[in-house]
Amino acid sequence: MNYAQARLPREKVFRDPVHNYIYVQHQIILDLINTREFQRLRRIKQLGTASLIFHGAEHSRFTHSLGVYEITRQICDNFQRNYPTKVPGDGGWDDHERLTALCAALLHDIGHGPYSHTFEHIFHTDHEAITAEILTSPETEVNQVLRRVSATFPAEVASVIQKTYPNPQVVQMISSQIDADRMDYLLRDAYYTGTQYGTFDLTRILRVMRPYKDGIAFAMNGMHAVEDYIVSRFQMYQQVYFHPVSRSMEVILDHLLGRANELYQTGQSDESFIPHLLLPFFNHEFNLQDYLNLDDGVLTTYFIHWRQSPDDILADMAHRFLDRKPLKSAVVTEDTAALLPRLQDMIRSVGFNTDYYTATDNSYDLPYDDAYDPKVTHPLTQIELQEPDGTLQELSTVSDLVNAIRGKFTGDQRFFFPKEMLNPGDDAPEIFQPIYDDFGRYIQNNQLIHPKEN
Amino acid sequence: MNYAQARLPREKVFRDPVHNYIYVQHQIILDLINTREFQRLRRIKQLGTASLIFHGAEHSRFTHSLGVYEITRQICDNFQRNYPTKVPGDGGWDDHERLTALCAALLHDIGHGPYSHTFEHIFHTDHEAITAEILTSPETEVNQVLRRVSATFPAEVASVIQKTYPNPQVVQMISSQIDADRMDYLLRDAYYTGTQYGTFDLTRILRVMRPYKDGIAFAMNGMHAVEDYIVSRFQMYQQVYFHPVSRSMEVILDHLLGRANELYQTGQSDESFIPHLLLPFFNHEFNLQDYLNLDDGVLTTYFIHWRQSPDDILADMAHRFLDRKPLKSAVVTEDTAALLPRLQDMIRSVGFNTDYYTATDNSYDLPYDDAYDPKVTHPLTQIELQEPDGTLQELSTVSDLVNAIRGKFTGDQRFFFPKEMLNPGDDAPEIFQPIYDDFGRYIQNNQLIHPKEN
Amino acid sequence: MNYAQARLPREKVFRDPVHNYIYVQHQIILDLINTREFQRLRRIKQLGTASLIFHGAEHSRFTHSLGVYEITRQICDNFQRNYPTKVPGDGGWDDHERLTALCAALLHDIGHGPYSHTFEHIFHTDHEAITAEILTSPETEVNQVLRRVSATFPAEVASVIQKTYPNPQVVQMISSQIDADRMDYLLRDAYYTGTQYGTFDLTRILRVMRPYKDGIAFAMNGMHAVEDYIVSRFQMYQQVYFHPVSRSMEVILDHLLGRANELYQTGQSDESFIPHLLLPFFNHEFNLQDYLNLDDGVLTTYFIHWRQSPDDILADMAHRFLDRKPLKSAVVTEDTAALLPRLQDMIRSVGFNTDYYTATDNSYDLPYDDAYDPKVTHPLTQIELQEPDGTLQELSTVSDLVNAIRGKFTGDQRFFFPKEMLNPGDDAPEIFQPIYDDFGRYIQNNQLIHPKEN
Amino acid sequence: MNYAQARLPREKVFRDPVHNYIYVQHQIILDLINTREFQRLRRIKQLGTASLIFHGAEHSRFTHSLGVYEITRQICDNFQRNYPTKVPGDGGWDDHERLTALCAALLHDIGHGPYSHTFEHIFHTDHEAITAEILTSPETEVNQVLRRVSATFPAEVASVIQKTYPNPQVVQMISSQIDADRMDYLLRDAYYTGTQYGTFDLTRILRVMRPYKDGIAFAMNGMHAVEDYIVSRFQMYQQVYFHPVSRSMEVILDHLLGRANELYQTGQSDESFIPHLLLPFFNHEFNLQDYLNLDDGVLTTYFIHWRQSPDDILADMAHRFLDRKPLKSAVVTEDTAALLPRLQDMIRSVGFNTDYYTATDNSYDLPYDDAYDPKVTHPLTQIELQEPDGTLQELSTVSDLVNAIRGKFTGDQRFFFPKEMLNPGDDAPEIFQPIYDDFGRYIQNNQLIHPKEN
Repeated sequence: MNYAQARLPREKVFRDPVHNYIYVQHQIILDLINTREFQRLRRIKQLGTASLIFHGAEHSRFTHSLGVYEITRQICDNFQRNYPTKVPGDGGWDDHERLTALCAALLHDIGHGPYSHTFEHIFHTDHEAITAEILTSPETEVNQVLRRVSATFPAEVASVIQKTYPNPQVVQMISSQIDADRMDYLLRDAYYTGTQYGTFDLTRILRVMRPYKDGIAFAMNGMHAVEDYIVSRFQMYQQVYFHPVSRSMEVILDHLLGRANELYQTGQSDESFIPHLLLPFFNHEFNLQDYLNLDDGVLTTYFIHWRQSPDDILADMAHRFLDRKPLKSAVVTEDTAALLPRLQDMIRSVGFNTDYYTATDNSYDLPYDDAYDPKVTHPLTQIELQEPDGTLQELSTVSDLVNAIRGKFTGDQRFFFPKEMLNPGDDAPEIFQPIYDDFGRYIQNNQLIHPKEN
Repeated sequence: MNYAQARLPREKVFRDPVHNYIYVQHQIILDLINTREFQRLRRIKQLGTASLIFHGAEHSRFTHSLGVYEITRQICDNFQRNYPTKVPGDGGWDDHERLTALCAALLHDIGHGPYSHTFEHIFHTDHEAITAEILTSPETEVNQVLRRVSATFPAEVASVIQKTYPNPQVVQMISSQIDADRMDYLLRDAYYTGTQYGTFDLTRILRVMRPYKDGIAFAMNGMHAVEDYIVSRFQMYQQVYFHPVSRSMEVILDHLLGRANELYQTGQSDESFIPHLLLPFFNHEFNLQDYLNLDDGVLTTYFIHWRQSPDDILADMAHRFLDRKPLKSAVVTEDTAALLPRLQDMIRSVGFNTDYYTATDNSYDLPYDDAYDPKVTHPLTQIELQEPDGTLQELSTVSDLVNAIRGKFTGDQRFFFPKEMLNPGDDAPEIFQPIYDDFGRYIQNNQLIHPKEN
Repeated sequence: MNYAQARLPREKVFRDPVHNYIYVQHQIILDLINTREFQRLRRIKQLGTASLIFHGAEHSRFTHSLGVYEITRQICDNFQRNYPTKVPGDGGWDDHERLTALCAALLHDIGHGPYSHTFEHIFHTDHEAITAEILTSPETEVNQVLRRVSATFPAEVASVIQKTYPNPQVVQMISSQIDADRMDYLLRDAYYTGTQYGTFDLTRILRVMRPYKDGIAFAMNGMHAVEDYIVSRFQMYQQVYFHPVSRSMEVILDHLLGRANELYQTGQSDESFIPHLLLPFFNHEFNLQDYLNLDDGVLTTYFIHWRQSPDDILADMAHRFLDRKPLKSAVVTEDTAALLPRLQDMIRSVGFNTDYYTATDNSYDLPYDDAYDPKVTHPLTQIELQEPDGTLQELSTVSDLVNAIRGKFTGDQRFFFPKEMLNPGDDAPEIFQPIYDDFGRYIQNNQLIHPKEN
Repeated sequence: MNYAQARLPREKVFRDPVHNYIYVQHQIILDLINTREFQRLRRIKQLGTASLIFHGAEHSRFTHSLGVYEITRQICDNFQRNYPTKVPGDGGWDDHERLTALCAALLHDIGHGPYSHTFEHIFHTDHEAITAEILTSPETEVNQVLRRVSATFPAEVASVIQKTYPNPQVVQMISSQIDADRMDYLLRDAYYTGTQYGTFDLTRILRVMRPYKDGIAFAMNGMHAVEDYIVSRFQMYQQVYFHPVSRSMEVILDHLLGRANELYQTGQSDESFIPHLLLPFFNHEFNLQDYLNLDDGVLTTYFIHWRQSPDDILADMAHRFLDRKPLKSAVVTEDTAALLPRLQDMIRSVGFNTDYYTATDNSYDLPYDDAYDPKVTHPLTQIELQEPDGTLQELSTVSDLVNAIRGKFTGDQRFFFPKEMLNPGDDAPEIFQPIYDDFGRYIQNNQLIHPKEN
């Protein structure tokens, strides 16, 4: 029998706390899970530094990837049972697309590395490009499995992830404003953090989802379930993904990797310890295998070494990251941004290197984007609701709640600084006290403010 | 104010998926959580290799330790509200013990290292001794915090964990057949694996728990809740902790570390790579700081190097561990143990080194031990139920279910071998086929059997 | 000891699926629960006709009342632990108010009768007035219990429910936009219907709640939890409380009781059956005891008799209610309201009495009302958020989501009609077919529309 | 198209808190749900008097019946997907049986009346016989629906419920030691009571269930899930179904209906009130329609009347039932049964009619019955586990836990008496005090005992 269609003699399941079971029915899916590249995802945390704030959320990209696969599988089952295509172009679901969709779902994050966001910032890697490379490069086990379907299959799966695949139903399953990826991570992150904001009614959303000619729509009577999903997503961004302490730990990580890189580039590294697995990245000449050797544990192993580095800044940054000593932060507005130099002066004058001990970071998200703009490379398609007679209506035109947050960036800009500025501690030099006092006048209700005149 | 009693100006909470919130009310508890030694527990998985089977269960000893603290806190609250001591020796709860109990609960696992069970087997470390050392050695941050209470406080807390503390109520809270430790890990492991076997009614158990002169008893009308807990524990052992694939991954880990050690001891190590952080252990001269530098990530970082070792066995063991290639297994009984040499011969004859590719492992647990034996160093106290008139009755005398499994070791002995012996694969040399066929006759229904005569 | 403060020798618990346990600590609370008037609430469904749509939601006002009590108890505990008053007027919580608050919480719904909304419409009863009467009339067991505290206590408790009690903290606990009543019914109705819209993070809301001089505020860092509660409430109204089929069953109930009343007033009742327990209401001369004899079962018992009434309309309405045969409905807008007479003509012309077989009903709710208007008898106080420095901010000024739905009535107006108009069935007279066809042109996507010209 | 196979144009769902959704795919199932006889089940509580103890558990037989249908549907889906029959007699599943199984599942409880157990005891009705009659009598709507499939279909469905249907797979789905009926009520009662004892892993049990020639077996690797189900069932009986207060309320109900019956038979009824709907039962000449007019509300409506009866015992029994005034109870053993006459004398001597104010009741259950005895009319089939090679093993031979409780009746015998005997209250005549004191010596730890000699 054809490998592409080869069903396992008996369906295999993986116990999953979010979806109860992950059902694997194709030999190829099992083979992909068993590749070295996919198993590596077990060693990369899904939430990065946020797990230092929400201690329960230590889950990996491995479990998330299985979850995205499972939701995609359920969508395919539903589409095939209820909306199979009868004649080409009728807007129904063509089940020959199933395997492509399942593989893309499973592999969509395979190019992620440890603490991707920060790592990419320092070392200029690109997890999306690497995902494509892992799928299409003949040296990977993933490619070897995919190729058994057909010579063009690896590129096809990659094109779904890159949103260039011709069938918009398949693309939107994996990447749109309400796709298997987002649905799994919201539910999973809510489960593992123990917050309840991220929960929404997955079963009902899957039930009202339906294919049409240009992608995927939702039955009008499921409007409130979709609305609830948008609100959940909005809340998870506000409460979890943009948590100021998590962003503070990312600032520290960024400065830590940046310092190590700088020391290396300027020949000041401690020669008694060589971070072998990072060298290709310091040297800007890494190959795919170098990248695939990285994981969270490799970075923290080096941090353990660096915590004892003769370079004070490197050692302190490593200590702050490993032992969780975040910076403090305050919200900055357009109106108060001009105060930042003055604050940095104070921080410098009590002895901190402000390049490493301060930062400004903004985190903004568009909770719902109704503006489909075909010029954007990866347009986020808007969410369409379908009336009983087939008419489509864009979500924000019927939902007051979604209309309220559509097209609006939410989040904030924050200034990060050592918490010693607000709580100097008993052993702080007394002569600095006036500086600390002055600094405190600029911070109120977690905001940067123009201090009141005395 | 006295540091020991210093309450936080405002109660602090940690969001927890199992207990909803962890409530921290004392400055000292917050300070302990913020120590380097305690933060390290974030980097050590609670379930070790079982997370390779139950993919959702990637939680750390850090979250479990917080959970044990929280359950202990709830027990103290309940005892203080309902059963405060009035005259010494009346069997009531003396709330001066609270801080000792809370610290012991939080720190009971602080000496654990990466994959403790296996690591200790190879390197002869002892996590219980190290726990005591972390508490009492002046060089640790934990000790520095504890010492602020009093000079003897670190040793007092250590003695609770070692079960030599004079107040049996405090000791049993942390270590007995139904203690805060076991209750947290059962609920937590059940939550993260997504199995439902481990769930029991914690609120009800806490409600029926009460102090008495010799420790902690349970109201008779809570008998079924206690019974349900014992059955849950029994099921978690059968289903999760003794899972044959998890034990197989431990076998591989054991052989991997053993091989690395052997190569080092015999001077055959690959000189191009030095596992700095393991050297003190290879050399049998580690200090506390060396131990505290270890975590799961350090080991897997070395495994990534070893996966490319010139030593084939080391490389293959590292590959099998990192890329999750378990051995197969079959149950061995007294009756079939004699067949093992014959099977090992076959395995050897198709080319495997049986020292590394086979193993025999037994996992047994006593689901409920009603025999209090004071000669045992760490006696597990039996569970006592209290009638309305104060009479005590040992659990198994009133519960048929518990009586059924009391004093009975459950678990099994298994023989581990390469799965290639049962599924040789397409590229296996044809001349070995008769050996594979012969081997298969010895395995039926996952058991080792005396093959039927042809 | 004083009865008011009499604690039970041992705290008593009621197992509750929503709050896990309801904790009763005062003798008086237990005595109130055991009164005849309170036990009667077991026989009155919380959701009325909505249980005919959400079949799982068959819970009674009894369970809801216990839940409101429990949430109030938790609020008092939190206030007393963290914000006790120190000097009069400092905005802290005075725990002498606890018993008044608990009794008001427990008894706030005690005057409800069967299917209150509809019953009041037909018989001009008023459950709020009756609640006050049950508390203050010496003939009730509730009054006898309350009076044991003091002669004025019954009236004090009643004044909390009537919002005239002087302490605004106590009043807002029981009646405000985010009170124990609403919080319990949202969580409870969500649990029993099995929908997930109504869930929000109760523990977190209780945690951020705090008393101040003019009532109750919420810490600013709990803003998202409050926001989520408002959205949940909005969704429950849209999805459950305003469900069109539930409203249709209420229409039928209204017409059923109306028809019985009309037959009685006009001397046309079937003399072979006397609905003894309703006679006082038909005769407009009921006393409190008559009212307290009513419950859901009394009404349905009469409906079972009426289902076999010689009056066709009464019999059919009873059949439709008991055997769940709802009317259909369509949304009416200002623009389409003018079409209703034409539709009623058609319905009449196929033989239906439109007084009984059609209705227009609107259900609107204000999801969040930020306009505190002291002229309104029962002003709904706005929700205040408290900054770390004590400043208050009204919720909709900081939440985009809440701002979006504030002050906006949501819901719809619907026209109800026999479903036979759209699905005449096989045995419908053929000559009516053109009327059915014409009727169908006015309904599209569940809306009343101006039909397209042919 | 054939009515039997008529699929709904679109699958219809009912939101259910236990199974999330109930999926209805056949027109006939929807038609059955809409019958008058099935809708009546909404007005009959699933747990009877137990809802007076577990206040959350007010759910009806309607919701349970939908749940049994849904589990059966899922079993059929699984069997059809994985184990379809290929040749007759191969032990596979023949999907032509599906509709019969689904109808039997839905209708298995349709003959239940209000508080069946007690009602049958007084009026000698038989809900199993009535179930068969509702299915086969041409006057019911249920029969009219079933007949549309074929003339013999009603009797076929009835024979499944009566366990005489030839296909043992279908029979065991609905009635065996681990069937859809038991699985739904355990999960549902656990959900609504809020206890956690009744939960078990339904998904896993459904997964390991498989048809074989003589019925239904379970894969050996699902042994622990089956074991957990048996233990859950055992615990629900101990904790919920045999709750002494619930049994006490049943005693009161029994004496209440018995008293009413006795008064009627002896011509002593209060003539001012006629319980029309009960007369056919008093007169021993009821027809099916009389039976179908009964529900919980009809009984409680009559109790409301009787609460004001001139007959003191009838009035007090009605009051005790409506206003929840249970009797007390104590466990009686063989050894203490001889004391009962002495206790009854005391109870009588303080003025209680012991015929009405005392009772002895035993509740016993066989948690697991491994003895298949074909002579028993309705044999409970034992649970069979299937090895990978197809061999069957009876559950208790492989499970220590099940073996422990197999074939053992658990439960107890209790003596019920007025709680005034233990707590006479302030207004009890002083001269009776010695009797109360004496009585109290016979009760210790909720057991009847031989009092200690003074």
